[in-house]
Amino acid sequence: MKLASAKIDGKPDGSLIVVSRDLTRAVDASHIAPILREAVERWSACAGALETLARDLEAGRATASFAFDPAAVRSPLPRAFAWLDGSAYIQHVKLVRKARNAPLPEGLLTDPLMYQGGSDTFLDPTEDIPLIDASHGVDFEGEVAVVLDHVPMGASPEVAERAIRLVMLCNDVSLRGLIPAELKKGFGFLNGKPSSAFSPVAVTLDELGNAWRDGRVHHNLDVTYNGAFYGNADAGHMHFSFGELISHAAKTRALAAGTILGSGTVSNEDTSRGSSCLAEKRMLEKIETGEFITPFMKPGDTIRIEMKDENGASIFGTIDQKVKKVDL
Amino acid sequence: MKLASAKIDGKPDGSLIVVSRDLTRAVDASHIAPILREAVERWSACAGALETLARDLEAGRATASFAFDPAAVRSPLPRAFAWLDGSAYIQHVKLVRKARNAPLPEGLLTDPLMYQGGSDTFLDPTEDIPLIDASHGVDFEGEVAVVLDHVPMGASPEVAERAIRLVMLCNDVSLRGLIPAELKKGFGFLNGKPSSAFSPVAVTLDELGNAWRDGRVHHNLDVTYNGAFYGNADAGHMHFSFGELISHAAKTRALAAGTILGSGTVSNEDTSRGSSCLAEKRMLEKIETGEFITPFMKPGDTIRIEMKDENGASIFGTIDQKVKKVDL
Repeated sequence: MKLASAKIDGKPDGSLIVVSRDLTRAVDASHIAPILREAVERWSACAGALETLARDLEAGRATASFAFDPAAVRSPLPRAFAWLDGSAYIQHVKLVRKARNAPLPEGLLTDPLMYQGGSDTFLDPTEDIPLIDASHGVDFEGEVAVVLDHVPMGASPEVAERAIRLVMLCNDVSLRGLIPAELKKGFGFLNGKPSSAFSPVAVTLDELGNAWRDGRVHHNLDVTYNGAFYGNADAGHMHFSFGELISHAAKTRALAAGTILGSGTVSNEDTSRGSSCLAEKRMLEKIETGEFITPFMKPGDTIRIEMKDENGASIFGTIDQKVKKVDL
Repeated sequence: MKLASAKIDGKPDGSLIVVSRDLTRAVDASHIAPILREAVERWSACAGALETLARDLEAGRATASFAFDPAAVRSPLPRAFAWLDGSAYIQHVKLVRKARNAPLPEGLLTDPLMYQGGSDTFLDPTEDIPLIDASHGVDFEGEVAVVLDHVPMGASPEVAERAIRLVMLCNDVSLRGLIPAELKKGFGFLNGKPSSAFSPVAVTLDELGNAWRDGRVHHNLDVTYNGAFYGNADAGHMHFSFGELISHAAKTRALAAGTILGSGTVSNEDTSRGSSCLAEKRMLEKIETGEFITPFMKPGDTIRIEMKDENGASIFGTIDQKVKKVDL
């Protein structure tokens, strides 16, 4: 099934709705759980009723269904108690580290890179990306993210994978101009990773069919920048599976239900597949020509991130954002 | 006033109670806001009623008040949408970096160090600290922490300071055996900073009287390790004020109401004041004798962290934890 969080004034977590597979219809589900985070926290009690409602919606039997509008929803979890972002596509790590003249981590292929990001103020799927200062170097990062049930401390990758309840897409907004100095301080990202946005809907694993296997989503991530093709890398090329990433995160503590865990920027070695962020393209330009050519995002620049199934149907709806200058 | 979160089975955020100034009595406040996080989110609507209830409790007029038991409460915010921890005591930064042979950050005195920590599974104030593996090197870190109202993006230190609603103490548990390798990867802390614990009660700024000034708490942090004096450093020696730390955190995004922000390990240059973590003491031993003498925490080791006012009365109650070996 597909779940989303309708925008409601004064409700920072929105209101739970079930969305049809083709993303055209939706129905209120707040009588089952008022918000998506609570549905995840009480999954065994809520999933059955949500599935019944989803089947009714597909069959045209749901009363008071309405047209689904991606601009009328917040990110599926507008706030979460945890947002952990891995970096499971090795090609991305290689290119981005090269771009900032940073060495590759020693355990690149055995010890996942992961950071804890801000989870208190996510952007909506169609919300403007604020640009405070051109020197910040705004970039997008197209990712796959999963929403977890409770994960016990020390969970194996197999146990960890069984905690995955939902899958979404993410735009992990990055401020490339701030990151090198910030990482040099040694405490990870803070100012360099402002609020991320997620796809209009989150889906259960069964919606992905055979494309969900080996703890990975085997579909392309379609990235459109300023209306033109920018990337369609295969998201299945994760070096670490989601189970392995979650297990890493839970090594020394339990993870609460509702935790969001990201794949890191989707990236393939085949450069004809384009990129899912500007930093990679810039690094490839530098390698080829000696110069960075593509600038970071300017006010008015648009980014669209989506994923289609084998029939060309959008699975998660589209992250569709524009950069907007803000004056503080 | 003093607020706490009573342990209730099946309620991960506990239930809001008001606690008397002398920490002996408490009264249910869940009719005003069911949980503390909601009281912070709706502060202007809730604060007045909570203050009235607190006055009634002090005057012996509160109906159904009961004896306050620090073992019956969770951390004031058992879960939060954000836990940001600064490192505002320069002496701590100097000693800990020396301990792991890491260089001092360039902007040590101008650009606050801060990391985003796990906020989904805090420990209770009297909950055991789990030890999975002796090589992890369990350490405590005594800190002061503030709970914030909404902070707009780009808030100045002055605006930021006005968003402080509550103050608490924190034990920011650290796994010294894991941190050097983790920080070397460049993405900050994850496994090396497991779940933190907070003091039994959170207090409003007026409870601190004149000890709250310049955006700092001017009282000693009393740290007792295995029943013996370990430290009583003056928490007022923060190089950066809380306003400056919050402003730094909000440089590129808003912070949601309910965000917790920590001071970093309380530390004074005067070594007769002891320490608020084992890493500092070990480094001082190394400098003096060439050897680390004090080991990290073993199963059964106990740590107590509290703060007393000018009359010797405990302000926040005591973080009182024991290390316990867990088998995964």
